[in-house]
Amino acid sequence: MKQVNLGIIGGGTVGSGVYHAWRQNGALMASRLGMRVHLAQIAVKAFDEPRPYPIPESLLTTDWRSMVRRPDIDIVAELAGGTTVARDMVLEALRLGKPVVTANKALLSAHGEELFEAAGQSRANLYYEASVAGGIPIIKAIREGFVGNRITHLFGIVNGTCNYILTRMKQERAGFEAVLAEAHRLGYAEADPSLDVDGHDSLHKIGILASLAHGFWVRPETVHVEGIRGLSQADIQFAERLGYTIKLLGIIKAASPAGRAGRAARGSRIQVSVYPALIPSSHVLASVHHVFNAIFVRGDIVGDTLFYGRGAGKDATASAVLSDVADAALDLKFGTPCRVPPFVPHERAGAVIPIAQAVSRYYLRLTVLDQPGVLAQIAAILGRARISIASVIQPEGHAGDVVPLILMTHEAPNAPLAHALDRIQRLAVNRAPPVMIRVESFD
Amino acid sequence: MKQVNLGIIGGGTVGSGVYHAWRQNGALMASRLGMRVHLAQIAVKAFDEPRPYPIPESLLTTDWRSMVRRPDIDIVAELAGGTTVARDMVLEALRLGKPVVTANKALLSAHGEELFEAAGQSRANLYYEASVAGGIPIIKAIREGFVGNRITHLFGIVNGTCNYILTRMKQERAGFEAVLAEAHRLGYAEADPSLDVDGHDSLHKIGILASLAHGFWVRPETVHVEGIRGLSQADIQFAERLGYTIKLLGIIKAASPAGRAGRAARGSRIQVSVYPALIPSSHVLASVHHVFNAIFVRGDIVGDTLFYGRGAGKDATASAVLSDVADAALDLKFGTPCRVPPFVPHERAGAVIPIAQAVSRYYLRLTVLDQPGVLAQIAAILGRARISIASVIQPEGHAGDVVPLILMTHEAPNAPLAHALDRIQRLAVNRAPPVMIRVESFD
Repeated sequence: MKQVNLGIIGGGTVGSGVYHAWRQNGALMASRLGMRVHLAQIAVKAFDEPRPYPIPESLLTTDWRSMVRRPDIDIVAELAGGTTVARDMVLEALRLGKPVVTANKALLSAHGEELFEAAGQSRANLYYEASVAGGIPIIKAIREGFVGNRITHLFGIVNGTCNYILTRMKQERAGFEAVLAEAHRLGYAEADPSLDVDGHDSLHKIGILASLAHGFWVRPETVHVEGIRGLSQADIQFAERLGYTIKLLGIIKAASPAGRAGRAARGSRIQVSVYPALIPSSHVLASVHHVFNAIFVRGDIVGDTLFYGRGAGKDATASAVLSDVADAALDLKFGTPCRVPPFVPHERAGAVIPIAQAVSRYYLRLTVLDQPGVLAQIAAILGRARISIASVIQPEGHAGDVVPLILMTHEAPNAPLAHALDRIQRLAVNRAPPVMIRVESFD
Repeated sequence: MKQVNLGIIGGGTVGSGVYHAWRQNGALMASRLGMRVHLAQIAVKAFDEPRPYPIPESLLTTDWRSMVRRPDIDIVAELAGGTTVARDMVLEALRLGKPVVTANKALLSAHGEELFEAAGQSRANLYYEASVAGGIPIIKAIREGFVGNRITHLFGIVNGTCNYILTRMKQERAGFEAVLAEAHRLGYAEADPSLDVDGHDSLHKIGILASLAHGFWVRPETVHVEGIRGLSQADIQFAERLGYTIKLLGIIKAASPAGRAGRAARGSRIQVSVYPALIPSSHVLASVHHVFNAIFVRGDIVGDTLFYGRGAGKDATASAVLSDVADAALDLKFGTPCRVPPFVPHERAGAVIPIAQAVSRYYLRLTVLDQPGVLAQIAAILGRARISIASVIQPEGHAGDVVPLILMTHEAPNAPLAHALDRIQRLAVNRAPPVMIRVESFD
């Protein structure tokens, strides 16, 4: 039986998780693949780092560069994280013609185009299933399973920390800060939670998925990002009364003119965004709770699909790394390093539209004086912006002379809505800034 | 750009669906794959059959055998259905060394072992993503995405007709026969619905998934099958009150003694069954409605995952066929026909346990005389069988001297439960046969 040797860079959460999974199921993998993957060495920062799973010291080295250059190392897994040294690690392995497996979404978001080009030039592949929604084989599903589909919609809950916070805020009527503190205590949130709660981690992942699905490189700075900081319990509860659940979504929507002629003429236009959105509580995506991730994909042939699993953590990520290592091993065995390239730019004229042009429905919560004519003023502003109101709620039982007023609109682009909201905000009847949250209804 | 020629056998629902999808996205596929798939010919029963999508007559032939033998046909897709001529078609193409794509689960269930062996001998691959849950790339997910996992649990809603019937029975409080008639009118059920409602179609699919996940060929006659015929509205409603939803599930559960030593000594033992089961209404699988399919997979590394999409229909199935055609095309381009073999028997000592040994929880509904001591008698019988009762409901407000008595048990093997049920049935207090439905709680 043929054998390939794997060298891992990184012995922390993911690296030690892969070691543990390989110990447990390496023999099973070998019997399935008809070849053996031998874990030859693991490069770490220091021998005495704390690790979720212990690794025998005989496997460890602190010199990643020498390990990558070892002639008997066939495959390199970059599980170190970060975007500076990690970039050197990946480029060094590719330069040596060695296939690389990475779980590093921040690295791909920052340097993906350069790394994919380096892979193409060295004819050594770069595999990154573990970089997006670890436990969910979504890269393989989009690239191979849906190769015959134009992806018209993708909605992803791709950040477990945010989904955990939103789930507990809804279930326990707790405030954002209290739940965030609890998430940190349980190890679901970092000491500095901004990468997660401000939407940047979701941006890294959704940018990778958008590039893959639409065939042009989606630069992170073209993606509109809003996080969940400041989301209020009032909005979670009003959403619930209206039959909706608020989730932080990565969103990719085709915005091309209908038909092949339109697309061919202008190249495909897509919305790529990250923002909290109201989704119907009856939708299967709304029942994705706690740290779980889920990705809803609509293809023009396949229709609606959804993929669900753990998005992070040592074990779920290890499962994805082993899957990529298996693909790399088979590609080495058969001498087909570029069988499925990491990224095929097949839509060079594609572009991301500005958020101002993106279309959605809207939830608006105003805090206004309880006096006659207020709704008429607001409705008039929305009407002039050609935004139609789908429903209005002014809940009873509020004490004092200030009332909440909730409006749900029909579909409209963001620009006129922002303009109308600006005008509404300037009305004298406001007693607090208006709240706007987008509504995605999967129609 | 390299080109391969595809010949399709079957111009009905799936065949014309593939033609339509290829017309729509063939160019997109080519740009993604770096090679062109040309649909060269479609063999049909008759030129004037009705088809969901029209096919130009110039593409049609009624002579499948000549088409398969055309030297310029590189890949054959068997989309004809049936298990007799379809077997000849697949064997003929494989004999000629041509890779075959099939959507035919009945064929694989009946002759899979023979066909996979023929593929191995001819070194031409057999691809069957479309045979199980069409729109869901579950074969690729299990075989490649989860290659580093031992699959400990798989629960699949894999028959759209049954899920449609159960969804409407629950939502509308309608009876089985009425909903079945409606499903037939809408085209969701065949004139003879027994293949679907009696569980045989689910058996075909779950047998394929069990073989793939566990590495030995699961013969259909070893699989315990119960359908949904005769499921009563009363049970759907009592289940709902208890927080459960009834779904027809294909079930694969590892039943091996824990640890590697146990498995190695005895080979893996698995439960493979199809039966209606109560599942917690809060579980994401319970929110899979109407004709949608979903497959819950638990791996020992990845944890819980779920895959959701349309299981049948011309378009969802076409998406899977195109995915397999793309894999076949790449394997031809790179000369790697056996890169991922259709089936790797990696657990030759594996076996399916009899249903008598399978363990689950149980829902029991008895219809008994409303008199003192009845519950004591029943509890005594269950106690002697070492089955513990988790909860009892005797709803109030029933007229007359006959009452329903609902018991939920803890986990127990099927054999003692069946024995106890037999004893309970013989009690004089029964006024209708007891109902037993298994409970799967994903613990």
